[in-house]
Amino acid sequence: MFADSSNLTLLLSDPIKLSEILYQHGARERRNRLVKIIEAEALFNKQSKFFLSREQLLQRAFKIQLRLLELLHQHNWTEIEWHHVGQLMDDPLPFTLHEGAFIPVIKNQGTKEQIKEWIPRCERYEILGCYAQTELGHGSNVQGLETIAKYLKHTDEFEIHTPNLQASKWWIGGLGHMCTHAVVQANLILPDDHSKPKGFGPHLFIVPLRSLNDHKPLPGCTLGDIGPKVYGGFGSIDNGFARFDRVRIPRSYMLSRNSKVTSDGKFVPAKHDKLSYGSMVALRAIMPETVGWDVGRAATIAIRYCSFRRQFNPDEHGLERPVITYNSVKRRLFPILAQAYAILFAGCEMKQLYHTMLDRLVNEEDISLLAETHSLSSALKAVSTWDGVRDMEEARKCMGGHGFSAFSGIGHIFANSAPSQTYEGDNYLLCQQTARGILKHVLSGSENKDYLLPRSSTYLNLLKEGSQEFCKARCQVKVATDWLDHNVQIEALSRRAASLVAELVEKFRENIDWNDLNWHCVRVTRAHAELYIINAFIRKINSIEDVAISNILKHLSQILAMHYLTEVSSDLFEIQFVSPEQIRLLRDQFSKSIDDLSPHVLHLTDAFDFTDYELNSALGSRSESPYENLWKAAQADPTNIERKDDVNLEFTKYIKPMLEFHKKIGNSKL
Amino acid sequence: MFADSSNLTLLLSDPIKLSEILYQHGARERRNRLVKIIEAEALFNKQSKFFLSREQLLQRAFKIQLRLLELLHQHNWTEIEWHHVGQLMDDPLPFTLHEGAFIPVIKNQGTKEQIKEWIPRCERYEILGCYAQTELGHGSNVQGLETIAKYLKHTDEFEIHTPNLQASKWWIGGLGHMCTHAVVQANLILPDDHSKPKGFGPHLFIVPLRSLNDHKPLPGCTLGDIGPKVYGGFGSIDNGFARFDRVRIPRSYMLSRNSKVTSDGKFVPAKHDKLSYGSMVALRAIMPETVGWDVGRAATIAIRYCSFRRQFNPDEHGLERPVITYNSVKRRLFPILAQAYAILFAGCEMKQLYHTMLDRLVNEEDISLLAETHSLSSALKAVSTWDGVRDMEEARKCMGGHGFSAFSGIGHIFANSAPSQTYEGDNYLLCQQTARGILKHVLSGSENKDYLLPRSSTYLNLLKEGSQEFCKARCQVKVATDWLDHNVQIEALSRRAASLVAELVEKFRENIDWNDLNWHCVRVTRAHAELYIINAFIRKINSIEDVAISNILKHLSQILAMHYLTEVSSDLFEIQFVSPEQIRLLRDQFSKSIDDLSPHVLHLTDAFDFTDYELNSALGSRSESPYENLWKAAQADPTNIERKDDVNLEFTKYIKPMLEFHKKIGNSKL
Ligand SMILES: Cc1cc2nc3c(=O)[nH]c(=O)nc-3n(C[C@H](O)[C@H](O)[C@H](O)COP(=O)(O)OP(=O)(O)OC[C@H]3O[C@@H](n4cnc5c(N)ncnc54)[C@H](O)[C@@H]3O)c2cc1C
Ligand SMILES: Cc1cc2nc3c(=O)[nH]c(=O)nc-3n(C[C@H](O)[C@H](O)[C@H](O)COP(=O)(O)OP(=O)(O)OC[C@H]3O[C@@H](n4cnc5c(N)ncnc54)[C@H](O)[C@@H]3O)c2cc1C
Repeated sequence: MFADSSNLTLLLSDPIKLSEILYQHGARERRNRLVKIIEAEALFNKQSKFFLSREQLLQRAFKIQLRLLELLHQHNWTEIEWHHVGQLMDDPLPFTLHEGAFIPVIKNQGTKEQIKEWIPRCERYEILGCYAQTELGHGSNVQGLETIAKYLKHTDEFEIHTPNLQASKWWIGGLGHMCTHAVVQANLILPDDHSKPKGFGPHLFIVPLRSLNDHKPLPGCTLGDIGPKVYGGFGSIDNGFARFDRVRIPRSYMLSRNSKVTSDGKFVPAKHDKLSYGSMVALRAIMPETVGWDVGRAATIAIRYCSFRRQFNPDEHGLERPVITYNSVKRRLFPILAQAYAILFAGCEMKQLYHTMLDRLVNEEDISLLAETHSLSSALKAVSTWDGVRDMEEARKCMGGHGFSAFSGIGHIFANSAPSQTYEGDNYLLCQQTARGILKHVLSGSENKDYLLPRSSTYLNLLKEGSQEFCKARCQVKVATDWLDHNVQIEALSRRAASLVAELVEKFRENIDWNDLNWHCVRVTRAHAELYIINAFIRKINSIEDVAISNILKHLSQILAMHYLTEVSSDLFEIQFVSPEQIRLLRDQFSKSIDDLSPHVLHLTDAFDFTDYELNSALGSRSESPYENLWKAAQADPTNIERKDDVNLEFTKYIKPMLEFHKKIGNSKL
Repeated sequence: MFADSSNLTLLLSDPIKLSEILYQHGARERRNRLVKIIEAEALFNKQSKFFLSREQLLQRAFKIQLRLLELLHQHNWTEIEWHHVGQLMDDPLPFTLHEGAFIPVIKNQGTKEQIKEWIPRCERYEILGCYAQTELGHGSNVQGLETIAKYLKHTDEFEIHTPNLQASKWWIGGLGHMCTHAVVQANLILPDDHSKPKGFGPHLFIVPLRSLNDHKPLPGCTLGDIGPKVYGGFGSIDNGFARFDRVRIPRSYMLSRNSKVTSDGKFVPAKHDKLSYGSMVALRAIMPETVGWDVGRAATIAIRYCSFRRQFNPDEHGLERPVITYNSVKRRLFPILAQAYAILFAGCEMKQLYHTMLDRLVNEEDISLLAETHSLSSALKAVSTWDGVRDMEEARKCMGGHGFSAFSGIGHIFANSAPSQTYEGDNYLLCQQTARGILKHVLSGSENKDYLLPRSSTYLNLLKEGSQEFCKARCQVKVATDWLDHNVQIEALSRRAASLVAELVEKFRENIDWNDLNWHCVRVTRAHAELYIINAFIRKINSIEDVAISNILKHLSQILAMHYLTEVSSDLFEIQFVSPEQIRLLRDQFSKSIDDLSPHVLHLTDAFDFTDYELNSALGSRSESPYENLWKAAQADPTNIERKDDVNLEFTKYIKPMLEFHKKIGNSKL
C-alpha cells in the first residue's frame, strides 16, 4: 500500500513518457510546431521587451496583433492552435478580451439574431470588443454598478449614461486604445405605468465606442488608458476607462437571450436565469490549469538554476556544492514542483467538470452540476492563484541575486499572475461562495438523509458521526513511513476540513452575521481545496499504468500532502487527532521524502518539456549556461549598445557636470 | 496587569503625540522642510516615472543626482538632511553606493594616508565609486571569489585580473554607467619564497575604471549595465558588470588598515581582524528600521483606501460598508500595521546597539558587543525583510483591483524592497549565522555557569530547567483575556524559541552535518527574532508616559504577539505547552482585539505622518479622493495625451490595418 521510496530507483529514464501524461494528446507536437514559427520572428523576441516603456510595450502589442492575424491567415490555424499561440505571447494583448469575453458573452447572452449580426464581424476582426463591467466605484459588487441604460420609448433607444465620476468604467481590457465596441453592464431603467423611471438592475448592452472610419471616440464617449500597472504586469494590454454622456444605442443592442425589453418599454424577465449563469464560470474554471503551467515554468527555471549554481563547501576538486543540495533550498523548491503537478491535475479535472456541466446545461437544460461547478471552481481558483503566485516569488528568491534580474524570467510570470488573485472574483469573496455551497450541503444533508454529496464534499459524511465520536477519532500513525499512506493523509485532511466546516455550521446556527465569518470561510475553503487537490492527484496516479511514472508521481503527491499537513498541524492538534510525537514523525518523514526526491527533480521539470522560448529565462534555458546567458542578455541592453557607439548622452549632459561640480563651487563646502 | 480594551476609548485625540514617539527629535520638522523643497520641482515628480523605460529612468536618475548636488550646495544641507533627501527619492540612485559603501569601506579599511588621499575627493564628487564584491559565479561565498590581484614586485604594482567569465564582477551598484572607481574584492596573490604565486584570500583594492577626462573605460576594463531587474525595482540604479584584463594599480591602492603587503611582496596580517569586521554589519543593522517605515507606508495606503472604499451591504441611506469593516480585511491589515510599529521599534534598538558596539570597538578596542550585534542584526534583517515584503504585497492585494494600478503606490515599495531579502546576506544564510551564535551561547553556558547571556537570549535560561521540568510547563491561560497578558505571551514565545534551540543543540550534538540543519536554523531564527520584536515593543511601551499612547501601543503589541502565537500554535502544541481549548481562546481573543482596534487604525496610520509626496499613492493620499486621483493620474499617461493631440501612431500603423484585414483576405477564412 505504501510507496516504498526505494522503488524510486527504478525511475524515469525518459521524462518524455511523463510529458505524455501532462500534455493532452498531440498538444506537445502542436506546441513545438507553433513555437518554431513564432520564435523565428524578431518581433516576438521576449527578452527585449524588458527594455521598453509602457508606451513602447503597447506599440509592440499592436504590431504583434497585426502580425498574428497575418500568420493566422497564412497558416490557417485551428481555434486550438490560435489559442496556443496566444499563450506563447506570455502577456495578455489588447484583443485578449475581445476573444475571451466580448465574443463569448454575446454568444451566451445574445439572441440568435444578435449572434448572427455580431459574431461574424467579431470573428473577422472587423470590430473589436471588450467587456465593460467594473467601474471606479464598483467591482465585486455588481449590483452596485451605477452606469445607467435608460429606455427612451419615443426613439426606441437606450441612453447609456455615466452619472458621476465613480460610475466611470475602469480596468476594461482592450478599451484603452483599441476597441471599437464594448459590452457594457448598466442599470436598466424603464418608465413604470405612470411614466416614472424604475430600475431593473444590471443588464448587458453593446455600445459602439470608436468610429470605424477614423477610430476617434464617438460623440459622448470619453475613453482612454488607465495607465501602468504594478510590477510591469499587464503592460501589453490597454486596460481602459470610459465615460458616457447620454450615448444612444438601438433597443436591439441590449443582449436579450434571457430578459428583454419590448418596444413599449415593458420588461420581460428571463425564464432560466441559471442558463446564462453557467458560462460565467468559464474563465474561472480554466484558471487553475493556467496557474499550474505557470508554477511549472517557475519551478523549472529555479530547479535548473539551483542545480547549476554552486556555492560553498568545495569538494576535493574544488567544486562547490550545488545550492539545490542545501536543505533550505530543497524545502522551498520541491513542494513547489509538487504543487505545479497537483494544480495541473486538479485544474484538468476542473475543466472537464465545467465542460460536462455546460453540455448538460445547454443540451438537456440540466442544472444539477451548476452549483458544484461554481463552488469548486471558486475554491480551486482562489487556492491555486494564492499558492501559485506565492510559489513563483519563492522560486525566484531561491535563485539568490540573479533571481532579481529581469532575465531570470520568473519576475515576469509573477507580475502577470498576481492580479489573478483579484479578477474573476476576488479570492476572499470566492471563499465565501465555496463556504456557502458547503454550508448548503450540510444543511440539506441534515434535512434529507438521501441527499447526495458531490465528490469534492464526501468528507462531510464525517460530520454524521456525531460530535462525540468525531472527537474520539485518533490518527493511527506509529512510525514515520505511516505518513506516506494516502489513506492516512486523506483522513487527516478530511478531518481537518470537516472540523472547520462544523465550526462554520455552528457559527451560522448561532446567527452570527455572515460578514463576520469571512475569515473562517477562507479557512474552510482552503481545507476543502487542499483535500480536493490531493484526491485529484491520487485519482490521476491511479489512472496511470506505467509503474515508474506512477511511483514518482505518488512520491510527489506524498510530498505535497505532507507539506499541507505540516502547515496545518495546528488544526490537527486542535481536534486532538494527532499527538506531538506523530507530528514529529510527520516532519521527519517529510524531510526524508524531500531528500529522496533529489535525484529526480530535474527529470520532473524536463517532463514539462518547456521550450527555451516558453521559459524566456537566462537562468533556466537548456541550451547554454546561465552565466553566458546573463552576459549576453546584458550586452543587448540598449544603454550598453549606446555607450559602445559612443552615444553617451547622460555622460556629457549630467555625469560630466557632476564630476566637475567641485570646480564650480571652488573651495566652498559641499 | 492586562490592558483593559475599554481603556482604548480614551484614545488618541491627537496622532501627532504618537508621531513624536516615532520620529526622533526634530526629524519630522526636518522632513517637512525638505519635502517642500523637493516636491516643488517637476524633476522629482514620482508618478510620471511609471511611464518611463529603464533607459529613461536612468537618464532621469542622472539628472536628479546633478540637481541634488546643486541643492545640497545651495541649502548647505547637513549630513543627516542629505541622507533624508536621499530617502525621499524612493529609489536607490547610481551614487547611493558611492556614499553608502565606497566611502565607508575606505574609511574603515584604509590607512590614515589612504583616507586622506581619497575621502576628500569622494566627498566632493570628483570621483565616484562603487563596491565590487559579487561576481557572476559567487556572491554569498566570498571565499570563492575568483578575481585576482597579483603583486608585481618589479613595478610595485598589483595586476587586477578576471580569469574567466564567472569571475566577472556583477550586480555592482553604480558601476554600470557612472563610477570612475571601484573598491574591488580580489584574491591577493603574492610570490612565495621560491617566487611561486601563493593565494592570501580576498582583499580590497581601489581600481580606477573610467577616465576622468572623457569618462571612457580605462584600458583593460570592460564595463556595462547588467540590465533591467524584476518588477521594475532598482530601475534608477545602474547595477553593472566589470571584467579586468591585467589592469595595473599601484601597491598603495590596496586598502591596508589591517593586513598589508610590503614592497618586497611580504604579507603582513591584520592584528585585529574583528576591528574591520565591526563596520561590515552597518548596512544590515539599519535595514530593519528602513523596512519598518516602508511597511508603514504600505499599511497607511491600504488602511486609508480600505476605509474609503465601500462595497456591498448598503445601509438605509444606500451607503455600502467600508471594506475595512469586513473581518477578512481587518485580519489581513491590522497585524501589518502592528508589524510596522514593531519593526520600527526593534529596528531603532538595533541601530542603537550597533552604534554602541562601534563606539566601544573604535574607542576602547572592546569587542564584547560584536558577536551579539552580528547575530541579532542577522536575525532582525532576515525576519523583518521577509515579513515586511510579504506584508507589502498583502496590503496591496487588500485593495482589490485598484491595488494593481501602479498609481496605488505599494507596488513600487514592494519592487524596491524585494531584493533586501537577498543582499547584505541572503536571509537563509543569515539564519545560519544567528543560529550559530545562539548555539555558542548554549554551549558556553553549559561549560561556564557564569556565562552572561545577551538580552536577546535570556530565554535560553529556560533550558537550564532540565528537560523534564521544561516538558512539564503548562500555559496558565484560563479565559480569553489571559492571552492579553504580556507575561503570558512572552512565556509562550520563549518556550517555543527555547524548544527549537534545544532541538538544534541536540542535532548538533548528534553530529548532523550543519548543512542539513539550515531549515531548522530558519525556525530557530524566526522564534528568536519574534520574541525579540515583542520584547522590544514592550520595552518601548514601558518607556512612554502618556497613558493614552501607551494603551494603544499595548493593544497593538498584543495583536502582534497573538498574531505570532496563532501562526506558531503548532509549535506550542508540540511541546504540550497549550491545550486545544487555550488555542481556541487565543483565536477568540485575537479576533476581539482586532475588532477593538478598528476605531483607531486611521489614527495609527496618521501618526506615521507621511506626506503625500512620501506615499506617492493615488489611493492613500490625504488630499483628494482615490477616484479623483486615479482619474487624474490616468489622464497624464502619455498614451492618452498623444491621442488627444491626435498623434496616434498605433492606430494608423497597426490598428487600422487590423480592422481592415478582412478586406484584404476577402471571403477566405480567417
Ligand atoms: C488586471 C485586471 C484586469 C481587469 N480586467 C477587467 C475587464 O476586462 N473588465 C472588467 O469589467 N473588469 C476588469 N477588472 C476588474 C476586476 O474584475 C475587479 O477589480 C475585481 O473583480 C475585484 O473587484 P474590486 O476591484 O471591486 O475589489 P473590491 O471589492 O473593492 O475589494 C477590495 C477589498 O475588499 C474586500 N471585500 C470586498 N467585499 C467584501 C466582502 N463582502 N467581504 C469581505 N471582503 C470584501 C476584498 O477582499 C478586497 O480585499 C480587471 C482587474 C484587474 C486587476
Ligand atoms: C539589487 C541588488 C543589488 C546588489 N548590489 C551589490 C553591490 O553593489 N555590490 C556587490 O558586491 N554585490 C551586490 N549585490 C549582490 C548580492 O550581494 C548577492 O546577490 C547576495 O549576497 C546573494 O548572493 P548570491 O547571489 O551569490 O546568492 P546564492 O548564494 O547563489 O544563493 C542562491 C540560493 O542558494 C542558497 N544558498 C547558498 N548557499 C547556501 C548555504 N550554504 N546553505 C543554504 N542555502 C544556501 C540561497 O539561500 C539561495 O536560495 C546586489 C544584489 C542585488 C539583488
